[in-house]
Amino acid sequence: MNNFVFHNPTKIIFGREILSQLGKEVSAYGKKVLMVYGQNSIKQNGVYDQVMASLAAAGIAVFEFQGVKGNPVVSHARQGADLARAEKVDVILAVGGGSVLDEAKAIAAGAVENIDVWDFFTGTKSISKALPIITVITLPATGSEMNGGMVITNEDTKEKFGMGGIPALFPKVSFLDPETTFSLSLKQTAYACADIMSHLSEGYFTTSATTLPVQDGYIEGLVKAVMTSMLKIQVNPSDYDARAHFMWVATLGWNELGTCGIPNGTIPCHALEHPISGIYDVAHGAGLSIVTPAWLKFRKNQIAHRILQYGKNILGIDTDSPDVVIEALEAFYKSIGAPIRMGQSQIVSPDFDALTLQSMKLFNAWGITGYTKDDILEIYHLCV
Amino acid sequence: MNNFVFHNPTKIIFGREILSQLGKEVSAYGKKVLMVYGQNSIKQNGVYDQVMASLAAAGIAVFEFQGVKGNPVVSHARQGADLARAEKVDVILAVGGGSVLDEAKAIAAGAVENIDVWDFFTGTKSISKALPIITVITLPATGSEMNGGMVITNEDTKEKFGMGGIPALFPKVSFLDPETTFSLSLKQTAYACADIMSHLSEGYFTTSATTLPVQDGYIEGLVKAVMTSMLKIQVNPSDYDARAHFMWVATLGWNELGTCGIPNGTIPCHALEHPISGIYDVAHGAGLSIVTPAWLKFRKNQIAHRILQYGKNILGIDTDSPDVVIEALEAFYKSIGAPIRMGQSQIVSPDFDALTLQSMKLFNAWGITGYTKDDILEIYHLCV
Repeated sequence: MNNFVFHNPTKIIFGREILSQLGKEVSAYGKKVLMVYGQNSIKQNGVYDQVMASLAAAGIAVFEFQGVKGNPVVSHARQGADLARAEKVDVILAVGGGSVLDEAKAIAAGAVENIDVWDFFTGTKSISKALPIITVITLPATGSEMNGGMVITNEDTKEKFGMGGIPALFPKVSFLDPETTFSLSLKQTAYACADIMSHLSEGYFTTSATTLPVQDGYIEGLVKAVMTSMLKIQVNPSDYDARAHFMWVATLGWNELGTCGIPNGTIPCHALEHPISGIYDVAHGAGLSIVTPAWLKFRKNQIAHRILQYGKNILGIDTDSPDVVIEALEAFYKSIGAPIRMGQSQIVSPDFDALTLQSMKLFNAWGITGYTKDDILEIYHLCV
Repeated sequence: MNNFVFHNPTKIIFGREILSQLGKEVSAYGKKVLMVYGQNSIKQNGVYDQVMASLAAAGIAVFEFQGVKGNPVVSHARQGADLARAEKVDVILAVGGGSVLDEAKAIAAGAVENIDVWDFFTGTKSISKALPIITVITLPATGSEMNGGMVITNEDTKEKFGMGGIPALFPKVSFLDPETTFSLSLKQTAYACADIMSHLSEGYFTTSATTLPVQDGYIEGLVKAVMTSMLKIQVNPSDYDARAHFMWVATLGWNELGTCGIPNGTIPCHALEHPISGIYDVAHGAGLSIVTPAWLKFRKNQIAHRILQYGKNILGIDTDSPDVVIEALEAFYKSIGAPIRMGQSQIVSPDFDALTLQSMKLFNAWGITGYTKDDILEIYHLCV
């Protein structure tokens, strides 16, 4: 096992009817909040009203900042940071999915520095402080509610960049009410499922270790849990327990715990996916269910033992053939309605050069070694 | 799933050669520390020297307080609190096993209040603040390095009382260096293994839920990991990876994460064990490998489905008989050298009345319902 530091101070408040506690938790950090959210979904599912009522009861002044996109864009984050500075808010409150949370983090960091927010993503400027962040997560997938990471797209350069493990970006408190996810479509839930499975599996597949009892046990248990919960949600989208387990796996799947101590764990599927959702604006999870089988096919000879262990301990398949496991994974994605080829996401003639160029930047930035330009191109060709 | 709050701000520094960072971490909280430890083991295995060197390099003044017992006693904790107050230390540094950490927590709480430390345990006084606690854990088992709990024995009344989830008692930083555990005997390691398995399994066996995908996956994965690691340590006590996995499971096994959301999870085996180690001064883990099979035999008809799931997913036994699973668990305990009957721990004529009386107090204090005095007596009889 590798040396590691784990420090995750986010407080999680989980369950039914918890949003009435929001105002009190926010009060501990200030009396003026910038509330960041997306489009209309939180108004339709009642979350907006619950949030506003709790903040009002605690006497908190709210400045609303809406319009966060599914793949959040830096121009909008810049506006948010300007507003936060202008209104001198004490707290950034994010209400929505991972995109809203990520943009809220960029705003929280940008609000305390008079710089261009994009400088954080290009590495021109590091983040040492941010306004306190509190979240109400309504689309469990990215784990942003309990980690120090964020991802933003620059719509001018079509670059989608991210970072992780920044102490100032861990939310102070995150509210997870599974009932707020009942209104998610099965498609949104399936994409989230693919995202969560990828977060849990990247280190599992890429590690140089043969076996890792603690991490393998943790990861196998949680991947099984999210798959089981997804299948129950397909039958009944308002199954509280299934939604609750799904939601809690999403958080545990990318809160920096599952990756602790894994030797040489990297995230190549994420580095392959970001250019897809950055250029074509498909859901991140949909991109992951496309690139993951392609990447596994490309790497199957080097990591056969890990693929077979995944098959046995997660999918319940006893086989000597990595191909059989990869086919079973594709069959699962298909069964939940997640795409496994670019054409299924309306990417009919992909710009392989642009994808490869951007992906190589991420491989470099994230320290993922052992891939040539031709390797990456080959994986993208396996996606069509 | 039940509603829950999870908030664990302890920073974990894990791996080889980490103790040189201790002084720097302590410095963030002050310049005068009370260093709490046990007998001579940390002097024999080199940990004492490493700790002292790192503290000296950071210019920290150290007041030593040694002599913590295997089952820490309140009279010693009172002396420690007096010393901490007299010397006006800024930080309590615990170096040792769970007993040392637990007593250090009692001292940290006692140092800021001019009261009898035992009042915290009887519930006369609640803990709202404590001096900052930093730990170097050298016997992984209790999870005290990453939780807000502690257990202390009152040697006058022969009562062993504990508490959990106290925000002020979470260590600020805990150092986990697997190499410091190489010198633990196989017996100590086996008792620790039984303790860790019990921490993970109590909620698993007692919950009213039929299945809990997330928690079951987490628990099953970690119990398998500690069993696998224990067997490797038996072959080679200096197997770094096995010691590292063992150590990390111990922390994850009782850091309040595995119990999140479990409906009606309780800890009856701990409530049955504390009187045994309190009265007879056997190791807590040894007491647990005795009471756990006895408790399972007593409850096997009510929780047959959970015992069978444990057998299938953890022990790899496909059976319809809970007895077969319980026998396999006993066989595992025997194979690692942990006792499964009181006689094996030199408790030849147990005082059933005293055990039952004390245990009932704990069942009441910890809200464990559904057991009569005769039930508890019957379980103790199954331990002989």
